[in-house]
Amino acid sequence: MKSKFVVIEGLEGAGKTTARDTIVSVMREQGIKDIVFTREPGGTPLAEKLRDLFKRGTDGELPTVKAEVLMLYAARVQLVETVIMPALARGAWVIGDRHDLSSQAYQGGGRGVDQDLMTSLRDTVLGDFRPHLTLYLDLPPLVGLQRARARGELDRIEQEALPFFERTRARYLELAAQDESIVTIDAAQTLEQVSADIRQVVSQWLQQQEDR
Amino acid sequence: MKSKFVVIEGLEGAGKTTARDTIVSVMREQGIKDIVFTREPGGTPLAEKLRDLFKRGTDGELPTVKAEVLMLYAARVQLVETVIMPALARGAWVIGDRHDLSSQAYQGGGRGVDQDLMTSLRDTVLGDFRPHLTLYLDLPPLVGLQRARARGELDRIEQEALPFFERTRARYLELAAQDESIVTIDAAQTLEQVSADIRQVVSQWLQQQEDR
Ligand SMILES: Nc1ncnc2c1ncn2[C@@H]1O[C@H](COP(=O)(O)OP(=O)(O)OP(=O)(O)O)[C@@H](O)[C@H]1O
Ligand SMILES: Nc1ncnc2c1ncn2[C@@H]1O[C@H](COP(=O)(O)OP(=O)(O)OP(=O)(O)O)[C@@H](O)[C@H]1O
Ligand SMILES: [Mg+2]
Ligand SMILES: [Mg+2]
Repeated sequence: MKSKFVVIEGLEGAGKTTARDTIVSVMREQGIKDIVFTREPGGTPLAEKLRDLFKRGTDGELPTVKAEVLMLYAARVQLVETVIMPALARGAWVIGDRHDLSSQAYQGGGRGVDQDLMTSLRDTVLGDFRPHLTLYLDLPPLVGLQRARARGELDRIEQEALPFFERTRARYLELAAQDESIVTIDAAQTLEQVSADIRQVVSQWLQQQEDR
Repeated sequence: MKSKFVVIEGLEGAGKTTARDTIVSVMREQGIKDIVFTREPGGTPLAEKLRDLFKRGTDGELPTVKAEVLMLYAARVQLVETVIMPALARGAWVIGDRHDLSSQAYQGGGRGVDQDLMTSLRDTVLGDFRPHLTLYLDLPPLVGLQRARARGELDRIEQEALPFFERTRARYLELAAQDESIVTIDAAQTLEQVSADIRQVVSQWLQQQEDR
């Protein structure tokens, strides 16, 4: 089977990093051994520098919304061209902790950047490169923020007000509904139940890929 | 007269920084006192950080061509939104050492990035924001590089091979020919002659603005 790019999406504290382990264990059971992990924004030294500039700004200056979007796309294309595409080309599977859908949801939905601008930027920069499967972990923002808060200090994005995350969630749900390759998981359930759902979705999807 | 955004463009060592003084002196003679200077990429703390990442990369990693373009646009939009537009809004004049035409010429011409991608990115990011006047200082790349070399160490871009600069120059000339707001100056002349030409172009243009 040709290797694939699987992405985990969702608000802060949705359980993305936790979900990764479940996906990995399903993949290993299916004999998939060569797995590359990425996170966005970041994943290469240059992209991590851009992530840091995006999160913290510099000398008291924060990026404008448009600068933020462009820095995120710079980091993304760097990661796609130098890590994800080469990994797929040599037959490795890639599991991404966030990818383009985060920009569509956070910048497009949360920040209200024009949706045409967001999709035209995506198409201009990434062409038709897309994840093969995206698991969107859906939950009420407050639940996720409480989980994330329990874990440590909140960064600039995590400190946004609740309506920002409500808009982001709404855009996630809207885009998931329009796109067959995005599966929504109810992440407000117990960890065990979320893991069971992910396990089922990923096994079934892998089975479908085999059957093709 | 409403304040304006005047840009100086050209290859390395074309005499851009030198030309600025000439433009300033013409403006002052016309009673223009409040003048803001910008350089690109850069001009704000965040944009300067992006300039540095663009020029030197980090940990031995250089940006891919697309990442380079996006970082340049991130720096540009940050500068336009936080410095240039506010300056113009309060009635200050702005003189820019490089602006968008550099990306069109270097990334579009020199690096061969698809021209539709370059113009669609420009339109997406900057809308219809454009300099009111651009002086393009034209000269054979070798002449400029020799001038720049005499000045100190060359950076990653300045170390490109001659054909890169030939393509960049060709695109500059092509775009200048298509756009009334771009005036080409023969920068291979003596400093005195270049200054005289700039003086004449800028005075005449200011006169035209008055007459409107
Ligand atoms: N279904 C769940 N029920 C309760 N707690 C959970 C659940 N899923 C994850 N958690 C806990 O919530 C916290 C955040 O989970 P995790 O780090 O996986 O989220 P994340 O989506 O990766 O967050 P971030 O976006 O901040 O990286 C962790 O402490 C994790 O153990
Ligand atoms: N017409 C000219 N004839 C000879 N020397 C010149 C001329 N114009 C500028 N110079 C000299 O060439 C050098 C480069 O000029 P300048 O720094 O103004 O160029 P620049 O376009 O700003 O370069 P860069 O793109 O590297 O910033 C300086 O030492 C300057 O004095
Ligand atoms: Mg995480
Ligand atoms: Mg200069």
